[in-house]
Parts: sequence; C-alpha cells; structure tokens
Amino acid sequence: MATTPAPQTASRVASGRLIFGEPRLRGVRSFGNGGASGRRVSVEAVNGAVRPNGAAAVADVRLVPAPPPASVEGDDGGDAFRLGKFVEGTLVYRQQFVIRSYEIGPDRTATMETLMNLLQETALNHVMCSGLAGDGFGATLQMSLRKLIWVVTRINIQVDKYSRWGDVVEIDTWVASSGKNGMRRDWIIRDRNTKNMIARATSNWVMMNRETRRLSKIPDEVRQEVLPFYLERSIIAADATGSGRKIEKLTDSTAEHIRSGLAPRWSDMDVNQHVNNVKYIGWILESVPLDVLEDYHLTSITLDYRRECRQSQLLESLTSMAMAMTSSPPAEPPLASSLCGSDLHSTHLIRQQDDKAEIVRACAEWRRKEHRGSMEQL
Amino acid sequence: MATTPAPQTASRVASGRLIFGEPRLRGVRSFGNGGASGRRVSVEAVNGAVRPNGAAAVADVRLVPAPPPASVEGDDGGDAFRLGKFVEGTLVYRQQFVIRSYEIGPDRTATMETLMNLLQETALNHVMCSGLAGDGFGATLQMSLRKLIWVVTRINIQVDKYSRWGDVVEIDTWVASSGKNGMRRDWIIRDRNTKNMIARATSNWVMMNRETRRLSKIPDEVRQEVLPFYLERSIIAADATGSGRKIEKLTDSTAEHIRSGLAPRWSDMDVNQHVNNVKYIGWILESVPLDVLEDYHLTSITLDYRRECRQSQLLESLTSMAMAMTSSPPAEPPLASSLCGSDLHSTHLIRQQDDKAEIVRACAEWRRKEHRGSMEQL
Repeated sequence: MATTPAPQTASRVASGRLIFGEPRLRGVRSFGNGGASGRRVSVEAVNGAVRPNGAAAVADVRLVPAPPPASVEGDDGGDAFRLGKFVEGTLVYRQQFVIRSYEIGPDRTATMETLMNLLQETALNHVMCSGLAGDGFGATLQMSLRKLIWVVTRINIQVDKYSRWGDVVEIDTWVASSGKNGMRRDWIIRDRNTKNMIARATSNWVMMNRETRRLSKIPDEVRQEVLPFYLERSIIAADATGSGRKIEKLTDSTAEHIRSGLAPRWSDMDVNQHVNNVKYIGWILESVPLDVLEDYHLTSITLDYRRECRQSQLLESLTSMAMAMTSSPPAEPPLASSLCGSDLHSTHLIRQQDDKAEIVRACAEWRRKEHRGSMEQL
Repeated sequence: MATTPAPQTASRVASGRLIFGEPRLRGVRSFGNGGASGRRVSVEAVNGAVRPNGAAAVADVRLVPAPPPASVEGDDGGDAFRLGKFVEGTLVYRQQFVIRSYEIGPDRTATMETLMNLLQETALNHVMCSGLAGDGFGATLQMSLRKLIWVVTRINIQVDKYSRWGDVVEIDTWVASSGKNGMRRDWIIRDRNTKNMIARATSNWVMMNRETRRLSKIPDEVRQEVLPFYLERSIIAADATGSGRKIEKLTDSTAEHIRSGLAPRWSDMDVNQHVNNVKYIGWILESVPLDVLEDYHLTSITLDYRRECRQSQLLESLTSMAMAMTSSPPAEPPLASSLCGSDLHSTHLIRQQDDKAEIVRACAEWRRKEHRGSMEQL
C-alpha cells in the first residue's frame, strides 16, 4: 500500500505543474497512445515529451477485493454477465451486457455515454482478468513501483445501430502496440442475437508519472509484463480514426453555438475527483442544436483529450455543424448493415471558461433518424 | 397504437394546464400513492383531487420488442442477469445486478443514483414480466384506453451498506395497495454472497390522466387487472418512511446552502423529455457541503416529488444540515449489520429559479464514513 501515491490535490494542479491532463475513463489508468505506424500524435503538442514510433504496453487495474477470474471459453453460464471470458487464447476478452432502462435516452436507444461506459467496463475487466496484479487502482506491479499510470489521449467510436432496452450486446476488446511508448485498445460491439457488429471503437493511451504529471517512456520491466497480451489487429484503420488527423480547434469566431457556465457535478467525478472522461460527451451535446439531437443519430465521435478537468472549473461547450462531404468515398468499409453513412459533420471544443484553456476537442458524424414519427408511437 | 397519446409538448406545460408533476422513474408510468392506512398524503396539497383511503392498483410497462418472459424460480442460469424471476408464486420479483465501474462514485462504492436506477429497472422488468400487456410505454390495456398513467409521488431509500465494483446485488420487489387510489412498491436489496439485506426502499404512486394532467381515481377495470399482484407486506413502516410526514419546505431564510443556475442536460431527459427523476439526487447533492459528501455516507433519502421539470428550466438546490437527533430510538429496526444509525440530518429543496416553484422536497440521513483514510490506500 505504501507505494500508492496520494490523490492529486487541487493545489498541485493550481501550481502549474500539470503538464498533461488525465481525463481517463473512470478508474482507468491504463494503456497507451501513438500512431500505429509511428506517426506523431496530438499529445506531442502538449508537452513534446513523447514521440511514439515503436512497440508499447498494457496496464492493470485492481480493486480490493478483486472479482473472481473470468470464465473460460465455452462457459456461457450465470457469470457471463458478471465477468467475461477470453477467446482466441488470451488475446481477446469478451463480455455481454444487458441494456438497462436507465441507459437509454430520449429516443429510447442506448446513449453514446452508455456505450462508452460499457467499453470502459470491458477494458477494466479485461485487464483485471489478465492476471496483471498491480498494487492500487490502475497500474501493473512494475508501474506501481515507478508511480506510473496510463492516460487516454484519444478515442473514436463508430456506431451503426443503437441497442434498445433489454437488448444484449457482446463486446470484444484487445490491446496492441501503438508507437514506442503508447498502446492502442480496440473494441467490437455485436448484437448478441444477430451477431452483427453494431459498433466499433479504438483508443490511444500513453504513460504518465502521476506525481510529476509528465509523460513517460515505457520501462522495459513494464513492457515485459504486458507484451504477451498484444494482438496486432485494427478494427479501425489509423487513417480513419485519425491518429494523426488533427481536429480543428474551435474559437469564438468559428463556433456557431457556444454554451457557457457548464458546471461539473459531484456525480461527474471519478475516484480521484477528476471528471470522468465519459462525461465530456454530455457537455459536447449541450451546445448541439436541439433539432440535431432530436432528428439525428450520432454515428461517430472522436474525443481528443487535452487537459484534465476538476469539479471547481466552469466549462464552455462550442459546436460548429456542417453538411457532411459525400463526394469522397468513406475511408472505412461500412458496418454490417451498411447504414453507417453520414449526413452532418460537427466539430466541438470543451474549454475552461476563465482562461479558455482547452480540455477536449471532438468531431462527430450524424445520420438522420429514420421513421422518427413511427418510433414515437411505440 | 392509435390509443397512445402523443408526448406532452412544451406549449402544454406553458399553458398552465399542468396540475401535477410527472417526475417519474425514467420510462415508468406505474403505480400509486397514498398512506397505507388511509391517511392523506402530500400529493393532496397539490391539487386536492385524491384522498386515498382504500385499495389500489398496479400498472404495466412495455417496449416493442418485449424481452422474453422471466425465468421461473430455481432457474439461475445465464439469463438471470437479463431478467429476473418470480418467487413466492408471482408476488415477488427478484433480479440480480452487477455493480459496474461506471456506477461507483468518488468513494468507490455504488452511488445512491445507481441504487435508484437499479430499483427502477427492477420495477419495470417486474411489470413487464407480470404479463399485463398494455399498449405503449407505461400503462395496462385498461389504462391505455383511458389515457391514464402512473406517477411517483414519494420514494424513500435506506442504505446500510454500499456495494463496490464487481459486487452482485439481488433485488426483490413487490406492490401493494396504498389508499383507495394509490399503490405502494417496496424493494429489498441484498448482497448476493452474504444474502444480508443491505438496503430497502418504498415508494408511493398515483394515477393521472396524461392529457388533462389531473389525478384520477382508479377505474374498476384497471383495479381488476392489477389486484392479483398485490402483496400486503411493508419493508418500511408507513410512519418511518413518512407517507404522512411532511418534509419542511426550505426557504431563502431557512436554507444554509443555495446553489443556483443548475441546468438540466439533454442527457438528463427521459423518453418524454422530462427530467428523469433519479437525476434529482445529483442536484440535491450540489448544495450539500463538500466535506459532508467526502466524510459521510447517505444512509437514507426521501424524495417528495411536487412538480415536473423540463430541460429549459433553470433550477436551484437548497440544503440545510443538522446534527441527527439521537435521543429518540429509531422507528425502524436496524438492518442486518446494525449500522444504520445517523449522524447528520439534512433537508433539501429543488425549485425553479425563475418563479421559485418547488419541484422536489427531500430529507436525508448521513453517517460518518469509517476508515476513510485506509480506503484511500486501496
């Protein structure tokens, strides 16, 4: 226990020693960042400390008491909904989830926030079941000894079909190298009944010293812990998710919609009293016009995390909408049902209200809902 | 489908025809209100239309497509986490849930909001599995024909132990009469491993015409549909939960802490674009001092719903804290582990910012956390 650093304090943040944000998935301190083929990534613009160009790493999350081990392949019994199982040896972790009534939105389908929550849960359970027993909440043993944590830098989720209350989804996840000092985590979400892929996601992570808040290279000892879990398979090509594609930074003059005075709530905080990074989606939607929210589905969103956010900070949400470009073919093959087209494109910025420091950049694709009138009759 | 009324519009609310709020559990239009022994209840103060003093009713919720029937007693297989099962004939509905990483708060235990979400899910699945196939989202057949819905008026939750990530809870729920035109729904939450009761809850519901927004008596045809599901068993005595006990209405002069400018987010809305009633807990906590949130557990909260809330309304949260009275013995026997004492008592009000109209009154009990320092070391 002695090696577990104390939580970051507000004074530490105020002192200006914060180099790079830690807007990780709640409770996650896992995984790395970087272009799949060694390209420079956005995090470099923050402090220039990391230039990923080689192999990378995987991390650990552990709570006390730890849940039991995952079931083995073929066991689809009662605990299938508690923890998942490994498939393809121990390279892919698979877990099923029921969509609950409180996880659907005004259009009666699972929200993007719900999907991100499920991705987070799957990632955490994957790491826990991998047997890398670190000390504390979010590091392997070798990471804990060095006070290293993982922080997410970018995530892209593409959704073809949103599930409804009572639907069961099956999520596969695995990790891969991403540059020399980063890691990539991918997910596939399938409808359990049809086995069709209904969504997919990819994310990039880097390693940070939790006391100095500086990005770190991956120590060899950590690399040896995690390398056996790598699966070099991409569900979304790097060009499509934009590991290297820069998201435009909106300004007062380029944003069409600005919503100020957004206040993080106590319930938005994670175990370290930072803002849970899933919550940013809610703030992004706050500056999206209501008719877009009502008439369009989000088909893709990319979040580029730039800086951590604490409860005391007032935020602003900026949005700019545009018709989607349909002249060029999509970079990715469409999902199973071929409905992953896009009618609108949007760009977003979440920034601090006082000094305008950016927290998250994002871009998204939207598709017009079909049969909206008939849905309301259900 | 033709009998399903259109969603309430903003203009209807603005027209002043709204008599009583509809801050129901998301998607729930179920169940009734009233004192268990015929006492008048708080809802009477709103429009005086209902004086419950006899038997009551149960309702239906249905989505299309409907999930499969619940498993029967003894079947604890893979679908146990999807839907529950009936025990004690068809009078008690039981379902298990895994606490997810995104359902825990800064202190690493399930939040009160999480518990309320699980109560809601259990209630909805109970009604769905009862076979009362109404048309639309929240009414039995006979209710749909009359454009009647159920609205919650009060809920009380008492928590002895908060679960942690990966814990499995088992929730029992049943319904009972509550006055002539109301219904009561109770819940027990147990730790699946120890089978100890770790929380319990009770709620009161009344029937409303969704077009006129007026409270309604229960038609005989509806009563006949639902009576077979009643179980006259109370997990919390009426005196303790305060079916008749009035919660003080805080004012600018009696409130110690006032937080203004709270804005409902798009993601706070339910399928009818009303505020999901679980969300009020988050707003209540916004005016609770930070040291209370950090150093105390909520052991009991009672929410008294007075008026519905829409996204466009800015809200204020008022709180007053007091040391708990320890001179009188508790009205309820303590829960299994006998830790349900209280160190602080609080009173709350959520009101509209512009006209100060009250939305929710609440009161709560708090117990000092033990071993807080050591928890942070985990």
